[in-house]
Amino acid sequence: MDLQNVDQLVEVQRSPQGVVRITLNDPQRFNALGAEMLVALQQALDAVAADASARVVVLAAQGKAFCAGHNLKDMAANPQLAYYQQLFAQCSKMMVSIARLPVPVIARVQGMATAAGCQLVAQCDLAVASSAASFATSGINYGLFCATPSVPLVRNLPIKQAMEMLLTGDFIDADTAFARGLVNRVAEPDALDAAVEALVQSILAKPAAAVRMGKALVYQQRELGLEAAYQLAGQTMAANMMDADAQEGAQAFAQKRKPHWQG
Amino acid sequence: MDLQNVDQLVEVQRSPQGVVRITLNDPQRFNALGAEMLVALQQALDAVAADASARVVVLAAQGKAFCAGHNLKDMAANPQLAYYQQLFAQCSKMMVSIARLPVPVIARVQGMATAAGCQLVAQCDLAVASSAASFATSGINYGLFCATPSVPLVRNLPIKQAMEMLLTGDFIDADTAFARGLVNRVAEPDALDAAVEALVQSILAKPAAAVRMGKALVYQQRELGLEAAYQLAGQTMAANMMDADAQEGAQAFAQKRKPHWQG
Amino acid sequence: MDLQNVDQLVEVQRSPQGVVRITLNDPQRFNALGAEMLVALQQALDAVAADASARVVVLAAQGKAFCAGHNLKDMAANPQLAYYQQLFAQCSKMMVSIARLPVPVIARVQGMATAAGCQLVAQCDLAVASSAASFATSGINYGLFCATPSVPLVRNLPIKQAMEMLLTGDFIDADTAFARGLVNRVAEPDALDAAVEALVQSILAKPAAAVRMGKALVYQQRELGLEAAYQLAGQTMAANMMDADAQEGAQAFAQKRKPHWQG
Repeated sequence: MDLQNVDQLVEVQRSPQGVVRITLNDPQRFNALGAEMLVALQQALDAVAADASARVVVLAAQGKAFCAGHNLKDMAANPQLAYYQQLFAQCSKMMVSIARLPVPVIARVQGMATAAGCQLVAQCDLAVASSAASFATSGINYGLFCATPSVPLVRNLPIKQAMEMLLTGDFIDADTAFARGLVNRVAEPDALDAAVEALVQSILAKPAAAVRMGKALVYQQRELGLEAAYQLAGQTMAANMMDADAQEGAQAFAQKRKPHWQG
Repeated sequence: MDLQNVDQLVEVQRSPQGVVRITLNDPQRFNALGAEMLVALQQALDAVAADASARVVVLAAQGKAFCAGHNLKDMAANPQLAYYQQLFAQCSKMMVSIARLPVPVIARVQGMATAAGCQLVAQCDLAVASSAASFATSGINYGLFCATPSVPLVRNLPIKQAMEMLLTGDFIDADTAFARGLVNRVAEPDALDAAVEALVQSILAKPAAAVRMGKALVYQQRELGLEAAYQLAGQTMAANMMDADAQEGAQAFAQKRKPHWQG
Repeated sequence: MDLQNVDQLVEVQRSPQGVVRITLNDPQRFNALGAEMLVALQQALDAVAADASARVVVLAAQGKAFCAGHNLKDMAANPQLAYYQQLFAQCSKMMVSIARLPVPVIARVQGMATAAGCQLVAQCDLAVASSAASFATSGINYGLFCATPSVPLVRNLPIKQAMEMLLTGDFIDADTAFARGLVNRVAEPDALDAAVEALVQSILAKPAAAVRMGKALVYQQRELGLEAAYQLAGQTMAANMMDADAQEGAQAFAQKRKPHWQG
């Protein structure tokens, strides 16, 4: 693996406010998720996980495509089961890292998102799409069913519409992606950054601890039965209330003034 | 706890047909779910659970707001973990009681439903909203992530749209709530009662036993795998068919006449 | 049971390409799922499961109605718990067979689909509806809650909208069914076959092994937690890549030519 290449494949910018912009930077290969790109993304996500002052991640991409998924050319050159097992394990680890990251991840989808690129959008907590973006789980067109992309897809879209994308490989446009729940907002290309920024600023305006506790709780309770989900959520909420910022928020509410956050 | 106050916080009306109207009656505090309101609601729900002739519940509210969620003022005044744990356990118990209630619960949402108020709408079996209603999980604006509201929210809405509400605290209007699955119908304010009444009459026109068996089955089977869900549903349906009203329904169908229910 | 009748209740056509058209052929009884019809359907599905060269199933129906669900007349004539238990077990087995069938099943819904007929649509992998089609879980109108239909219904539609159909028994039209996720496409009656054929051809254009692995994986992973789902999906995808057609697909992609499938 070319470690210098790894460093160039993903661009990371961090603002003083804790906004981490991770940008896929391999536009010539449509930001394909080759082994080196996966290492670069994992490094960037791990750094955010270890950064107690990170607040929100924007996952963006350079060039015309958002992400074309796995690099079929590399995969054609390595026809070994062990290679594929390791590649999909590496990719799945990165995807799970997005769900387990302590801060929200917003996908900024400026163009085509296919196969594991569409999965990346589905796996993020929030997604804003340009009206020029399009989405497909197109592996099936090359004989490879988008199995790992199906994991977040069926957790985002109604099952029949997910199945249609997976079996046909057909593209859907940004408005259809919005209607089906794959993205939160659609913006004209020149309004895309403003739409992403609105979500970023909204999250920055909240106390950090509450956002972190909340994101983790949502995915945990979603996999539980109703009573167990409520029990975990109630405990989380009580712990959240003991946080200084939640106390300040409740005081500010009672005193009809704006809260001042520490976190 | 002021027990006299408890009795006044919730108004319960019961029709001869078994329609129980539970009305939140603390409009000055936007029907906030303080400890006394939770006791009053729990009492009203427990009474329905014990009432074999109850057929359907309409959960409504007095004043401009449907329900503003927890009482942040009370919470600011009691900064103790045990207090918060007990409060959220009490609230979650009440919410689970709605799901476990033997008869359907219809939310009549005439105004703003925020935080645990939005949760209340999400937890009901059916919901009809006035076009003047609005919905938000706004705790995060005060430093308190809407953890318990997230439980029914992610079981009603697509995950990304639930996450957006939880992280931003932004309001959605009634039409958006309808499009996302949070409410069944939207009506103009002066047509709200008629829309609720149409659902009530539809449920009253069905045999009581089948409705009771059915509601319980839906939530039970939803948490099971496909085969286990079918097994439970098949057993439930066979038991349902042995009910006198189901026999009458099948006979009436075979004889091309209207059925006459006992239940 | 009249075995000759069984053979006539379902018409099976198989194309040289592996398209199996299973047509409910009891239009006078609105293709009701009586015990003999269930046997006929199970036989047809079992034959597809055993046919290694089957590629896709189209489930269609003769006459005005798609399927009116169980035969209430037969049920009225057999008021025994054991009879009902056996009937619903038989029906549920057939429904599970659709989910477990190795190839995709497309419902071609030309008319009314009620009760277990609506369930049949919900249980299929894909569904195309005529604009003249309509859908209801109408058992409750005859005192029998659509318990088994609720199983695929809550796995297709948002919970409140599923609950409304189950409790009211009201019909929804094809556009509403589309908006709620129950069908993939709506076509004018004279464009219905073309819309179904487009999906059939899209599936035939993919390698058989990838489609089979994919369909099975989607339903398996959907019932798992996130990490377990990713692990299973990653293993499935690696196995898929070792298939000759996936190797050909990746080579074709790398060489910028059209793939030639063996499977």
